[in-house]
Amino acid sequence: MKTIKVGMLGIGNVGSGTYLALEMNSAAIEKSAGVHLEIAKILNRRPDVKRAVEVPREKYTSDPYEIINDPEIEIIVEVMGGIEPASTYMADALRAGKHVVTANKAALAVNGEMLQKLAMENHVMLRFEASVGGGIPIINAVADPLVSNQYDEVLGILNGTTNYILTKMTENGADYDDVLKDAQKKGFAEADPSGDVEGYDTANKLSILISLLFGKGILPGDIPTTGITSVSGIDISYATEFGYKIKLIGHAKKTPDGLTYSVEPTLLPLAHPMAAVSNEFNAVFVRGNAVDELMFYGKGAGPLPTGSAVLGDVIDIANCIAKKAAFDIQPLLHYDSKLPSIGEGSSQYYMRMTAIDQPGILGHIASTFAKHDIGLQSVMQRAGDNDRKTSVPLIFICYNVERQVLNACLEEIREEGYATSIDAVMRVQDR
Amino acid sequence: MKTIKVGMLGIGNVGSGTYLALEMNSAAIEKSAGVHLEIAKILNRRPDVKRAVEVPREKYTSDPYEIINDPEIEIIVEVMGGIEPASTYMADALRAGKHVVTANKAALAVNGEMLQKLAMENHVMLRFEASVGGGIPIINAVADPLVSNQYDEVLGILNGTTNYILTKMTENGADYDDVLKDAQKKGFAEADPSGDVEGYDTANKLSILISLLFGKGILPGDIPTTGITSVSGIDISYATEFGYKIKLIGHAKKTPDGLTYSVEPTLLPLAHPMAAVSNEFNAVFVRGNAVDELMFYGKGAGPLPTGSAVLGDVIDIANCIAKKAAFDIQPLLHYDSKLPSIGEGSSQYYMRMTAIDQPGILGHIASTFAKHDIGLQSVMQRAGDNDRKTSVPLIFICYNVERQVLNACLEEIREEGYATSIDAVMRVQDR
Repeated sequence: MKTIKVGMLGIGNVGSGTYLALEMNSAAIEKSAGVHLEIAKILNRRPDVKRAVEVPREKYTSDPYEIINDPEIEIIVEVMGGIEPASTYMADALRAGKHVVTANKAALAVNGEMLQKLAMENHVMLRFEASVGGGIPIINAVADPLVSNQYDEVLGILNGTTNYILTKMTENGADYDDVLKDAQKKGFAEADPSGDVEGYDTANKLSILISLLFGKGILPGDIPTTGITSVSGIDISYATEFGYKIKLIGHAKKTPDGLTYSVEPTLLPLAHPMAAVSNEFNAVFVRGNAVDELMFYGKGAGPLPTGSAVLGDVIDIANCIAKKAAFDIQPLLHYDSKLPSIGEGSSQYYMRMTAIDQPGILGHIASTFAKHDIGLQSVMQRAGDNDRKTSVPLIFICYNVERQVLNACLEEIREEGYATSIDAVMRVQDR
Repeated sequence: MKTIKVGMLGIGNVGSGTYLALEMNSAAIEKSAGVHLEIAKILNRRPDVKRAVEVPREKYTSDPYEIINDPEIEIIVEVMGGIEPASTYMADALRAGKHVVTANKAALAVNGEMLQKLAMENHVMLRFEASVGGGIPIINAVADPLVSNQYDEVLGILNGTTNYILTKMTENGADYDDVLKDAQKKGFAEADPSGDVEGYDTANKLSILISLLFGKGILPGDIPTTGITSVSGIDISYATEFGYKIKLIGHAKKTPDGLTYSVEPTLLPLAHPMAAVSNEFNAVFVRGNAVDELMFYGKGAGPLPTGSAVLGDVIDIANCIAKKAAFDIQPLLHYDSKLPSIGEGSSQYYMRMTAIDQPGILGHIASTFAKHDIGLQSVMQRAGDNDRKTSVPLIFICYNVERQVLNACLEEIREEGYATSIDAVMRVQDR
């Protein structure tokens, strides 16, 4: 049986998971793929730090180029994370004629076009199943058997930390700060959670999905992104009353005018299959012109799930090497679509504002919506909990409107003094 | 650009969908796969019947061997359905050195081992993504990138008709017969619905999944199969009270003793992601040793979704032909596992019985359960709606027990005369 040597850049969570998934399943892999995979060298600058797996010390090196330039190593797995130096190492590995498998969404979102070009020029494969949705086989599923579809829309719950926090806020009626502390204690959120809770991680993954499904390069920094830090328990309970769940959604959609996209807390109808995706689970929902709705659900993070996705890519490449098959260097990501880039576009929106409790106020506010040609689907006025004599919360859900038009209208409502504050504005997903 | 000729056996629902999916997406396929696909000949014994797509009449032939033996045709798509003559035609096509793509679960469940052997011997590919879950890319997803996993369990909602009926029964509190009539009127159920509602269609698909995931050949007829015809509205409403939804589930699980499997109406906990799969949608849920939980959701039927899955397989094969790549003739289905075959195995069960309303009866029945070493998780006694003086419904959910042991116990309860009838017994899925 042919042995294929693999070099690994990094041995953190995902690296350990990859190593372990290979140990657990190597007999099955040899049987089904017909190759023996050997992780020959691992970049580890801190060999004394205890890792989740037992690795023979002689496999470690502190010099990435000892791996990249090793003529016996055919596949390089990049699991360091971060844009640099990972992108440089991957570029050099591709130039050295190595196949590259990466789990690095940040590097891929920013440098995907450059890396893929290098892979094509050097006739090697660049694979990245683990970069979006961890263990969920979304990338290869939509890139491969489903080229028989053109996609119109994608929705992703792409970050386990934020989904865990929103789930607990929904279940327990708890507030953001308390749930965050609990999530940090349980290891579901990092000490500095900003990459997750501000939506940046989701924006990286959405950027990759946009290149994959719609053939456009939108840098994560150019995606309108709102995190979950301002989602309040009260909005969650209003959403529940209206028949919605609030999830942090990365969303992109082809419209007649162009491609719209955003990352933001979104009200999902309870009947939407994404509404049932709870706790640390992730899901990607796509709509194709032939297949209609598809959803892929699973663990978006965690060493073993993510490691198994990395390993799946490694096995695919090893299979090709073993069979001396022409490598499938059809690029998965595309950047050449002529579709205009729109940003947020139009949608239904949920709004919560505080109004002075005075006859006629609701009429004034409704007239201002009408003036801006914004139709209202639902309106709810409740007796205020505090200061009940002077202020009252008003909840609206409007029909499709451009976000900029809505913002101008809300600004006017605020300036006219009918609402003392606009407390929340969130996108509402239709089915 | 290379043209690859495809022959099609059948032009019913799935055939029309395949034809249409190709028409809709041929420009995108040429761009991404680099081949031009031409459906050159179609077996159609009734050329005068109007079809959902416009096909030039000269493509039709009434002789399957004009397609199977055409030296210019490289790929044959079998979308006739039924075990025979489809299996014979596929076997002959494989012998003639053609690659075969099929959507035919019945033929594959019964003759998969023979067909796959022929494909291997003739160095051609046999692909069948559309045979399970219609448009959902489950087969290639678990067969390909996830060989990095070994699977422990699979649950499938594999039949759209039955899921539609159970969803409407749950939503409207309607009874089976009324919903079936409505489903037939809307085209979701056939005039003779027995293949769907008796669970046979699900058993075919589960048989394929068992070969795919666990490497065993279990004929559909050997899978303990119960359909939905005896599911009553009252059980659905009790299930709701206990926090469950009733779905027709094809289930298989590796246990220390061997492989258990069944097709039967099953109580799923509301928090299970499969519980949210509604209407005509299908889903397949697997548990892998590395990836943990995964679920694939989408349209399990319908011309275009199913056609897009057929077309995806065709494109994969065409890709290999165009690149002169070594064909991936690693078999997807396996039949050589040494795992003992157990059948239903043990599970939690929901039971509804009618008892005579008399002091001490519940105690007698509970003692009989205890005598058989069956633990009770939940017990509910309600005032009977009819004959309230003489009989009362009793609901039990027991802990894990072998179905045979449970059946013996229930028989004893009936014989002792405490229960006048055992009205329902259904498997309860743990999370």
